[in-house]
Amino acid sequence: MMKIALISTGEEILTGDIVDTNSAWLAELLSDAGFKLSWHVTVGDAMEELVDAFELASQRSDVCIVNGGLGPTTDDLSAEAAAQWKHEGLKELSVWIAKLEDFYASRNRVMPESNRKQAHIPESGEMVDNPVGTACGFKVSHNQCDLYFTPGVPFEFKTMVKDQILPALVAEQHESMPQLKRWLTFGLSESLLADWLDPIELPQGAVLGYRSSMPTIEIKLRVPASCADSDVKALEKAISNRLDPFVFSTGKQRMAQRVQALMLERGVTLSTAESCTGGMVADWLISEAGSSAYFQRGYVTYSNQAKQDDLGVPKEIITEHGAVSIPVVEAMAEGARDKAQTDFALATSGIAGPQGGSDDKPVGTVAFALATPDGVFSQMLVLPNRGRTLVRKVSTAVALDMLRRYLTNQPIFTQYSGSKILYQGQ
Amino acid sequence: MMKIALISTGEEILTGDIVDTNSAWLAELLSDAGFKLSWHVTVGDAMEELVDAFELASQRSDVCIVNGGLGPTTDDLSAEAAAQWKHEGLKELSVWIAKLEDFYASRNRVMPESNRKQAHIPESGEMVDNPVGTACGFKVSHNQCDLYFTPGVPFEFKTMVKDQILPALVAEQHESMPQLKRWLTFGLSESLLADWLDPIELPQGAVLGYRSSMPTIEIKLRVPASCADSDVKALEKAISNRLDPFVFSTGKQRMAQRVQALMLERGVTLSTAESCTGGMVADWLISEAGSSAYFQRGYVTYSNQAKQDDLGVPKEIITEHGAVSIPVVEAMAEGARDKAQTDFALATSGIAGPQGGSDDKPVGTVAFALATPDGVFSQMLVLPNRGRTLVRKVSTAVALDMLRRYLTNQPIFTQYSGSKILYQGQ
Repeated sequence: MMKIALISTGEEILTGDIVDTNSAWLAELLSDAGFKLSWHVTVGDAMEELVDAFELASQRSDVCIVNGGLGPTTDDLSAEAAAQWKHEGLKELSVWIAKLEDFYASRNRVMPESNRKQAHIPESGEMVDNPVGTACGFKVSHNQCDLYFTPGVPFEFKTMVKDQILPALVAEQHESMPQLKRWLTFGLSESLLADWLDPIELPQGAVLGYRSSMPTIEIKLRVPASCADSDVKALEKAISNRLDPFVFSTGKQRMAQRVQALMLERGVTLSTAESCTGGMVADWLISEAGSSAYFQRGYVTYSNQAKQDDLGVPKEIITEHGAVSIPVVEAMAEGARDKAQTDFALATSGIAGPQGGSDDKPVGTVAFALATPDGVFSQMLVLPNRGRTLVRKVSTAVALDMLRRYLTNQPIFTQYSGSKILYQGQ
Repeated sequence: MMKIALISTGEEILTGDIVDTNSAWLAELLSDAGFKLSWHVTVGDAMEELVDAFELASQRSDVCIVNGGLGPTTDDLSAEAAAQWKHEGLKELSVWIAKLEDFYASRNRVMPESNRKQAHIPESGEMVDNPVGTACGFKVSHNQCDLYFTPGVPFEFKTMVKDQILPALVAEQHESMPQLKRWLTFGLSESLLADWLDPIELPQGAVLGYRSSMPTIEIKLRVPASCADSDVKALEKAISNRLDPFVFSTGKQRMAQRVQALMLERGVTLSTAESCTGGMVADWLISEAGSSAYFQRGYVTYSNQAKQDDLGVPKEIITEHGAVSIPVVEAMAEGARDKAQTDFALATSGIAGPQGGSDDKPVGTVAFALATPDGVFSQMLVLPNRGRTLVRKVSTAVALDMLRRYLTNQPIFTQYSGSKILYQGQ
């Protein structure tokens, strides 16, 4: 298997002034394409550190991607360091100078002299086009390793890797990229997902991976291109069947995107009434472009007075059952649906912490209601108390999940990993 | 200066299945304490890769922190690899076995045999306590380098670094930690901040750093411990004076935390009326524990009907001026303040994109209003259009910034970097 190394350059990464997001992105992209990063080093902007890194990486890999150090300033030493490492000079690419001049001319500016440097690459180097920036990428070979030099700016880096470097690696490997299938899930822990999927037999070379990004977990299946289509389909079906009601997307659709697609398909409308989630449900929904086509309005009724004034929740039921209770959250959902004249309404009321818990209703206790044309569905759960933010995020996901399950004719209630059911019913 | 290396271990980082957050955290922590990471490598879980990494790091640094590979499974090879590298065996720490047995006994469980491994460290190693987990940390020395072995679990790693490893480094350096001052700012670009602060003369050894985490920028000043207190105070004052109205915190307080502190100081209350920010203003505020003491309720009036029904915005002014206009956003703020009977109300209405822009009101055009006991302050800005999410985030920050400026008796309106002012007034 091809060994691929990554060298990240930049003092700002080592001082913590910027967070290197390119490396995690590259690691995932390579995996999805059936490759694997085998070694990754981060070094500063000094000449000797760069030369040292090139030497180490070239001894340990077949391909090395060098990221950063192609800018116009004096800290940007990658091209010069590569030339020094190879004991050669730099050449100026006239085609790149022309490109830079055009770039500045189109903005009615003259190319600053400092940018000329960005057209200089080692004598033995081959240009690798950067269609979205002023830094010229290039490739040099040494110690039987191909080194690709790329700019640090994430958008430029990603464009070059996707459009040019990855295709070159795929061509070199003489093997087609694996087939990649995804399932985005909510509600099951990673260990439970693994328990459920372990009994499914995988064809040789197929790999199942998990990637958690709270509160959702992505499952990725990579199958070698050589696998028969019918086998892949059967495998995909087996996994889908196992996970079904917990999967909200088989692509990269966010949960709110999925809800939006379902709402638009049916041509129905939604309002929200939030207490502990405090606007997060509305925020997730409205963060998707086009949400105005179904999302009408939301009430963040944080105080009890607001629950009464805006949603018509009777004062007596708040007094009798408490703000975090099934009767209150049901009245909130019905109040919002009525007031907003929408087909559906979602409501939450809970104890996000860190204060406010009791023996009966500890921090993490959250009541949810979904008002529909067929009546109100409600549940009260004790979610794992991993801090205020996570309690609120998981609550938001549970609320959206109830609506998603309703719209896809799945059972609305389930046992989410790590949470305790206090009540579920219609 | 002491050279510090970091070795991150774990296949899951190289495959992209988990994102390594420990390294950026460590880089920042070391910088804040006057150290600097000089080299960082990430390798997989194979014996030869680990031994190779130890050798490379020890040749390039005085201290090396090794992160990961101390778990109970067969992939966890760090201790064994360290012993192999040093040509020695492993020893079992009876004190750690006793700790593990206690740990499991207190949970009414018997220690699984696999955990015994977590008490095994190289013969020449010294134990480094891990007070919050089952993996024993340790230190070994080789090639004139001290290597500290730490668990990959972020909470355990951070606790050990802060409580034990960092103090050991400080002691070894025979120099006090630098003084660290912070300013969290909103509204100025990094280049403008640099232009403003560049003329301020820094004492020898002092360093000014910028860390952007949209939409705010943190400025950090590190001054050598040897600097006279009066000089540091003068410098701090000069920087504060230069930045003043743009600074919302001189610690780590988030913007919503700062607003909360100011609201509680005055004993006043707040409501919100959001259109384009769609719940994000309420969400930021409610994400802070204790927000119920001043935040009463929020209206997410996404549709025009909701603006009329819930906030009493007259239909005619929507028709005449459009939903994104000063008259509408002022009516929203006044409506919320009236309805909720709060001292203050914040309102937003804008075009977050990607669709919906026009020549007059391009994507990024957002109207803001702050209703106060002294009347309504409002502005309409064209924010930089860097995508729907960023337009909404920056809008949320502008809204909170208006309230913060009012509560601290600063001018409510300013020129935010990159945005165009269409209207500002009371």
